[in-house]
Amino acid sequence: MKLLRVGTAGSERPALLDADGTLRELSGIVPDIDGPLLADDTALARIRAAADSGELPVLDVAAGLRIGPPLGRIGKIVCIGLNYHDHARETGAEPPAEPVIFFKAPDTVVGPHDTVLIPRGSVKTDWEVELAVVIGRTARYLESAEDGLAHVAGYAVAHDVSEREFQIERGGTWDKGKNCETFNPLGPWLVTAEDVADPQDLPLKLWVNGELKQDGTTAEQIFPVGEVVWYVSQFMTLYPGDVINTGTPAGVALGRPEPKPFLRAGDVVELEIEGLGRQRQVMKNA
Amino acid sequence: MKLLRVGTAGSERPALLDADGTLRELSGIVPDIDGPLLADDTALARIRAAADSGELPVLDVAAGLRIGPPLGRIGKIVCIGLNYHDHARETGAEPPAEPVIFFKAPDTVVGPHDTVLIPRGSVKTDWEVELAVVIGRTARYLESAEDGLAHVAGYAVAHDVSEREFQIERGGTWDKGKNCETFNPLGPWLVTAEDVADPQDLPLKLWVNGELKQDGTTAEQIFPVGEVVWYVSQFMTLYPGDVINTGTPAGVALGRPEPKPFLRAGDVVELEIEGLGRQRQVMKNA
Repeated sequence: MKLLRVGTAGSERPALLDADGTLRELSGIVPDIDGPLLADDTALARIRAAADSGELPVLDVAAGLRIGPPLGRIGKIVCIGLNYHDHARETGAEPPAEPVIFFKAPDTVVGPHDTVLIPRGSVKTDWEVELAVVIGRTARYLESAEDGLAHVAGYAVAHDVSEREFQIERGGTWDKGKNCETFNPLGPWLVTAEDVADPQDLPLKLWVNGELKQDGTTAEQIFPVGEVVWYVSQFMTLYPGDVINTGTPAGVALGRPEPKPFLRAGDVVELEIEGLGRQRQVMKNA
Repeated sequence: MKLLRVGTAGSERPALLDADGTLRELSGIVPDIDGPLLADDTALARIRAAADSGELPVLDVAAGLRIGPPLGRIGKIVCIGLNYHDHARETGAEPPAEPVIFFKAPDTVVGPHDTVLIPRGSVKTDWEVELAVVIGRTARYLESAEDGLAHVAGYAVAHDVSEREFQIERGGTWDKGKNCETFNPLGPWLVTAEDVADPQDLPLKLWVNGELKQDGTTAEQIFPVGEVVWYVSQFMTLYPGDVINTGTPAGVALGRPEPKPFLRAGDVVELEIEGLGRQRQVMKNA
């Protein structure tokens, strides 16, 4: 299933993109798309049955309905750094011996087509297309990568927007350059795990002003999804509605020769993961 | 005012410790102690008036009422690393030129007397008493430290429990050693800002098994509270109900000669900040 949330920011309501590409209202079936829903097999079955019936109300998209992030009440966003062989190479870093973890705050999440703000004083705002993994069951000291994969409720496109000066040159951890306002567009859809045949065979692409900048595949991940979930669960407990951004492939501005083409106001960034949908953001100064 | 939350984990209800030291029920006045309340001057005035009336119902503490964390629905917890001159010295680090930022997830927060779990495989679990700052108004690109201080709703004791091997020796950022389950006891009280005469003149103490280990003062902070709030607001937006753990003074296990006295199951940690109350946790294996 492709689950999403539509409406104005902070007041989104649940919806479904059906097999015919029609947007349908889910408000009558469930209150929201969030952790409690993803942990509730009965509620998910109710959505499936309603979808199959073909009787869910059709949403009127003519009025320019906003698409919000496909997940509400996110608990935490754990991010994996340098998780693609090609991206580690381009940044001059050794491939890590074990996953690198940093955090984004849930309040950085915006819809897939919302404006992204370039922070005041920023000259190194960069792009990163990522596969976001949404947790569906509490994961604590899991025993295997297979078990890790079994705790995933679904997948989405994430844009891990990054300010490289704040991240690398201002002391402390990467978090300083990863948590600026609007720095985590998510969506358009949360595609449930049963509809993603192989999370390690997903092409990811990102364009800036129409020019293809990132053209990768999750096959290049150093630590695949199941292993990441297993690994993270050894250090912290993952709860339904938590998100893991699983890293970005090569092609970011940071990895290019000087002058590096960091983002500027007016730039248009588009991102796509096959089967998970497409994002488009216009950059604006904060 | 001293605000707190009592009851079983996840079902806490709001309460107040009055000037006589009597615990009183606030459920009839406000639904919870959280960001929306702290941003709502009218609701806070309502609590003050009810407290002054002396007519709030007295809570029966004889039954062993649990004290929870004094803040619900925490958005994010921003932590400041190496923010005390004496602690920077003991860890062999240069005092940072600007604040070091890392994150704890809100799901690490427990009550001040709850059990703290030593993670599986941990041999370097360490203590850190900290002044927690609770944000009361949205802070975005603030102009000054004075302005920073004006956005603080109140203060609390935080225990920034830390696993040093996970934090320092396992690759990536400090977050890996800061986000284990139960790693952020908070409370007992949220003391509103008007009742803290000078946040830069607060003695902080921590004992392990009755032995005084940390004996500091917020006067030793490299970056004082107002400056920290101002600084963080240049990199991310702070919202009502966000928390900043402002760093720890000298005396942690990491700063001691070998063999460093890291925490073990059965150890009892007590923490106190003058005017903000006292915590006590028993360590247990996860």
